Amino acid sequence: MAMKSFVEVSAESHFPLQNLPYGVFKPESGSLPRPGVAIGEFVLDLSEISSAGLFSGPILNGSDCFNQPTLNKFLEMGRPAWKEARATIQKLLSESEPTLRDNTNLKQKALIPMSKVEMLVPMTIGDYTDFFSSMHHAKNCGIMFRGPENAINLNWYYLPIAYHGRASSVVISGTDIVRPRGQGPPSGNSPPYFGPSRKLDFELEMAAVVGPGNELGKPIDVNNAADHIFGLVLLNDWSARDIQGWEYVPLGPFLGKSFGTTISPWIVTLDALGPFACDAPKQDPPPMPYLTEKTSNNYDIQLEVQLKPAGQDPCVVTKSNFRHLYWTVTQQLAHHTINGCNLRPGDLLGTGTISGPEPDSLGCLLEQTWNGQKPLSLNGTSRTFLEDGDEVIFTGVCKGNGYNVGFGTCSGKILPSPQ
Amino acid sequence: MAMKSFVEVSAESHFPLQNLPYGVFKPESGSLPRPGVAIGEFVLDLSEISSAGLFSGPILNGSDCFNQPTLNKFLEMGRPAWKEARATIQKLLSESEPTLRDNTNLKQKALIPMSKVEMLVPMTIGDYTDFFSSMHHAKNCGIMFRGPENAINLNWYYLPIAYHGRASSVVISGTDIVRPRGQGPPSGNSPPYFGPSRKLDFELEMAAVVGPGNELGKPIDVNNAADHIFGLVLLNDWSARDIQGWEYVPLGPFLGKSFGTTISPWIVTLDALGPFACDAPKQDPPPMPYLTEKTSNNYDIQLEVQLKPAGQDPCVVTKSNFRHLYWTVTQQLAHHTINGCNLRPGDLLGTGTISGPEPDSLGCLLEQTWNGQKPLSLNGTSRTFLEDGDEVIFTGVCKGNGYNVGFGTCSGKILPSPQ
Repeated sequence: MAMKSFVEVSAESHFPLQNLPYGVFKPESGSLPRPGVAIGEFVLDLSEISSAGLFSGPILNGSDCFNQPTLNKFLEMGRPAWKEARATIQKLLSESEPTLRDNTNLKQKALIPMSKVEMLVPMTIGDYTDFFSSMHHAKNCGIMFRGPENAINLNWYYLPIAYHGRASSVVISGTDIVRPRGQGPPSGNSPPYFGPSRKLDFELEMAAVVGPGNELGKPIDVNNAADHIFGLVLLNDWSARDIQGWEYVPLGPFLGKSFGTTISPWIVTLDALGPFACDAPKQDPPPMPYLTEKTSNNYDIQLEVQLKPAGQDPCVVTKSNFRHLYWTVTQQLAHHTINGCNLRPGDLLGTGTISGPEPDSLGCLLEQTWNGQKPLSLNGTSRTFLEDGDEVIFTGVCKGNGYNVGFGTCSGKILPSPQ
Repeated sequence: MAMKSFVEVSAESHFPLQNLPYGVFKPESGSLPRPGVAIGEFVLDLSEISSAGLFSGPILNGSDCFNQPTLNKFLEMGRPAWKEARATIQKLLSESEPTLRDNTNLKQKALIPMSKVEMLVPMTIGDYTDFFSSMHHAKNCGIMFRGPENAINLNWYYLPIAYHGRASSVVISGTDIVRPRGQGPPSGNSPPYFGPSRKLDFELEMAAVVGPGNELGKPIDVNNAADHIFGLVLLNDWSARDIQGWEYVPLGPFLGKSFGTTISPWIVTLDALGPFACDAPKQDPPPMPYLTEKTSNNYDIQLEVQLKPAGQDPCVVTKSNFRHLYWTVTQQLAHHTINGCNLRPGDLLGTGTISGPEPDSLGCLLEQTWNGQKPLSLNGTSRTFLEDGDEVIFTGVCKGNGYNVGFGTCSGKILPSPQ
């Protein structure tokens, strides 16, 4: 199949014909949300393509999965439907295929400039889970809070540690984040303080979007887990370190996280990521049988964080890579269901902060500034934690031979706490 | 208003005219789910009452909130709608009111024997949060795992500790619970074990069902919090102590809880519970201003747990009371939103295990058997933790003058792990 589209796609674009990530958008304010696929600087409106009868394969023919305000119905249909949709869209958009290319009227309706649309959270998220799967991140946090002898707790090596997150406050890239108020830890003999968080941070993560899922009581085998993952997004797990530090013993993070979690709008499918698969790290001790995969893959996704203080230029503060994850997303998913817990279409599984081994690859300010002790220098100003007006911008991209498969950006700006 | 219904209600019934709890049911398998109210041994079908035009008040007249498969739309409407519905239903069912009493045809359609209906989880639960608000429970767990000096962590006295729970696995009373498999802690130098949980437990809890809720970034004042709580249910937070004990440091409970959470089908409204309000415990240190209530109430709800081994009679193992909670449900709700976290209609806020001060008032086997060290004697057999075939039955009731306002039961039976 030709890998060039009749839609112009620049060499730097994240969205060539090889990618075709899915999102949900409104063409204009007031119109109904509908699924779309990114191609170059355009969004292909799948509800129009579907209404035109162009999804003619055996699974999607006659389905209303693209005449929905979310992707959940399509997610539930599973990999055969995803493969059929990808093949159909890739063919329709290819330069040698006249069906859409030469239909001026349909092209006008179905290809909308990305700059004009409003992107939405693309699925109803029944549950959001956040893992803790980067060894570098776990080790740095451990050294900071428990010292180098006990940096990583023994359980971490045996299972992908995770906690239940808050689904209601997952927002789409571009949504402002209000600085949370809450209690912070006492210092010395003083009582705990209350007020706007003094240690507001980002966390560089990615997240898997769940496909069909499983019934309660019926675990998913780790070697079938990839069939339950539709794709990945960028995720910023905004964290108030003072609130989190005071509240988290013994039941884990709660208000230190639940004020907002930002995801990027385009879900890049596992099919598009396939060419960028790479070996996952060797695990020692070897994983238990229920976590042992025939092939254990990560993906070579280059990640970057920029911090943009109000009125200033953005400054790159982190360069990391998805391949640094110790536990794979398929292991995470299998572990999540081993107790019988049911996953539903649209569930979100965050990876946890993805830190690498180098000082410039740390995925949050907590690690970069060593809990505020070593301020970060930014073009003449400095930061320990985030200040009001700061914007944080994540990007993620796989570098192919002459093309990119990218995630676009995941951004958010800090607004002051309410008075 | 007369407090007697034309529907016969026995003196022991949990569902007299003073109660009128809400649920969602199917009259027969295959029919559509719809909202109902319990009265004696009957369910009043609110979709029939609504279709007959009998919700004639200014808010509910013409609304389709009772022609829905869940209560979410009604929950979102808030206290004025709830009060109007209660007044209408209380009048319709009273012995002096002929409208329904003398309409044989409508009565036939709208009053269905409870024994014939199938009850469902009455709302779509966007997020489920579980608190840890009984001091006796916190203290007992603390002594067991950290010793008497550090039994309760300092933060517990300043804020209602909580964690995000799993919404997908909340099931309705009567649903079987499959014993979860998972990793348990290593003993000595052995690696951790894997298999069916060896320490399966119940937790006696109640939970608040959220009404309108709030926008992201806009906290709810503690003195308005009651307007965001529709009512309460019984909740069994099934817990696998071995899985939980091995996984929970540092991010809290995950697979040790997410395999199943059972709720009772009837939501008893705060309006029905009003006559049973009682003072909450004095809090020392005094709560911070954002947690300080003009009046701080609990409710006098008598709670009981029965354990029924397969083929044997049930045995009462716990008698506790909702009034033992240290943090009130309104404080829990206000704390939940102080960081800006948004609550949505239908969200579920568990109280945490409600243990009292007496040995027979402990709300889980972990406490009762002191982590399996002191087996519990049950009519000639004994238990440390739950065995396959065991059924656990919670009841809750407020004792009025000549009547009860009750919650019915919340039950579940343990099935063996899959092979």
